[in-house]
Amino acid sequence: MKIKRVAIIGGTHGNELTGIYLVNKFDREPDLMARSTFETIALLANPKACQIGKRYIDIDLNRCFLRQDLENPNLSSYEAQRAKEIYHIFSSQNTNSSDLIIDLHTTTANMGLTFIFDSNHPFNLQLAAHLTSVYPNFKVLASGTQNQDSSVLRSISQLGCTLEVGAVAQGVLDASLFQQTKALVGTILDWVEAYNQGTISPLKNPLTIYQKIQTIDYPRNERREIQAMIHPQLQFRDYEPLNPGDPMFLTFDGESVLYEGKSTVYPVFINEAAYYEKGIAMYFTQKQIES
Amino acid sequence: MKIKRVAIIGGTHGNELTGIYLVNKFDREPDLMARSTFETIALLANPKACQIGKRYIDIDLNRCFLRQDLENPNLSSYEAQRAKEIYHIFSSQNTNSSDLIIDLHTTTANMGLTFIFDSNHPFNLQLAAHLTSVYPNFKVLASGTQNQDSSVLRSISQLGCTLEVGAVAQGVLDASLFQQTKALVGTILDWVEAYNQGTISPLKNPLTIYQKIQTIDYPRNERREIQAMIHPQLQFRDYEPLNPGDPMFLTFDGESVLYEGKSTVYPVFINEAAYYEKGIAMYFTQKQIES
Repeated sequence: MKIKRVAIIGGTHGNELTGIYLVNKFDREPDLMARSTFETIALLANPKACQIGKRYIDIDLNRCFLRQDLENPNLSSYEAQRAKEIYHIFSSQNTNSSDLIIDLHTTTANMGLTFIFDSNHPFNLQLAAHLTSVYPNFKVLASGTQNQDSSVLRSISQLGCTLEVGAVAQGVLDASLFQQTKALVGTILDWVEAYNQGTISPLKNPLTIYQKIQTIDYPRNERREIQAMIHPQLQFRDYEPLNPGDPMFLTFDGESVLYEGKSTVYPVFINEAAYYEKGIAMYFTQKQIES
Repeated sequence: MKIKRVAIIGGTHGNELTGIYLVNKFDREPDLMARSTFETIALLANPKACQIGKRYIDIDLNRCFLRQDLENPNLSSYEAQRAKEIYHIFSSQNTNSSDLIIDLHTTTANMGLTFIFDSNHPFNLQLAAHLTSVYPNFKVLASGTQNQDSSVLRSISQLGCTLEVGAVAQGVLDASLFQQTKALVGTILDWVEAYNQGTISPLKNPLTIYQKIQTIDYPRNERREIQAMIHPQLQFRDYEPLNPGDPMFLTFDGESVLYEGKSTVYPVFINEAAYYEKGIAMYFTQKQIES
């Protein structure tokens, strides 16, 4: 199987500026993303949200891609309609599986440069291994959804991935992260070119994958009000081990809430601003070595 | 002159969570803010914006306090009305000048703990000097408006101040900054108590004040689109000297834009998310020593 088209997508969330400005740059300078063996398109997923600098207009676009929702004519929010338009761009090709979607995101969590993927397809694993070999602190996060129906944008292409970059505040352009993301996209395009040309050699180093296993909410009262904050000892410590007995939260009275699980986990998306409304303080992951 | 009432205000911007959660805490535990010589109230300034976690509903509440706007019956946005309500709380007392407003804010700029004041009233200078002696990295920022008509909330009391705390992303609770802000408010209340009791002794150490002198916008094209980002060498360097020839911005093509002024300045509010729409990339300040 060869890749026929790569879609670089930014602005799925209108307040994550890195992807928006990168898509604008690729749009102005298509030579930057052009390669000989495939077509590349740059797409702003939620232009209205980008215009007002908010995550979304009506609902989170990156939760609108369940097949049943895409096929439901009664869903008429701006994002539901936009999801159908984006799905149409990709489903109109018969060769859906030869599209590669790269969805550019930022996070207020300290996740550095993270590659998120759904499917354990060898293509994804080889690409992830290559990026890990090029970028020393690069992290690989498996959503665990495999090929099940998923609501995120990348899921409409079999080989979709998300680049999650942080920590950066919503509504802020960080020049260093902008440049790193741009370089990363270039490296992916080069690798896909080599993949199509059959010139990549499988990497022999073991690949570390963080596998999502659980979402953790903030402690809340019966009115759903937050009762504690991420503990200062956990803040910005994404991908570091959280051991039984380690502090997770700090109440507004200054009391620590400890991790009471039985095994070490590796939290990610710690204190992501957009996840307060979703009831997520962090994800727990397990660290796996693929060799 | 004695202070008769202190108002601790949070949620002037609905996505700056520290002040919101602190006001809620003071509301639940009034003993924390009670002192013997004055009344203390805790007030959520923009409850509707807090509820949806956005800076504002219609317009920025912290730009609604010009006297002419407060007296203009034709201004009917949610924030214009709310500003009139808040103004009424304070103007209904004859002894307006004996109120002290402490307006709690956060910023995505790396400003640590900053005390912002308008008037060079000895009360403000002595309080600032005291806080500087207690908190080693505490910064004092003079708006330069003196007693001119100002649009910010604190300006409706002669002795108003803002506590500006960061760097923290919008929509994020940072436990460490929450605790530092709480301690800071306690120190201010204790100092006002001593001030009313006449037991403070003037500090002899010189006080460093950063004086706002200029706002700097991002480089923009004729369509007002941003053409460059804060330079990585300037990002998070609030209060550090910017010398002629130092890099300020980085274009999307990777070119540095240098500071071409003739004298050293000290930038603050560098890359504040909420200021993109206001056309402010940073403020320049001058460093002054008051002795």
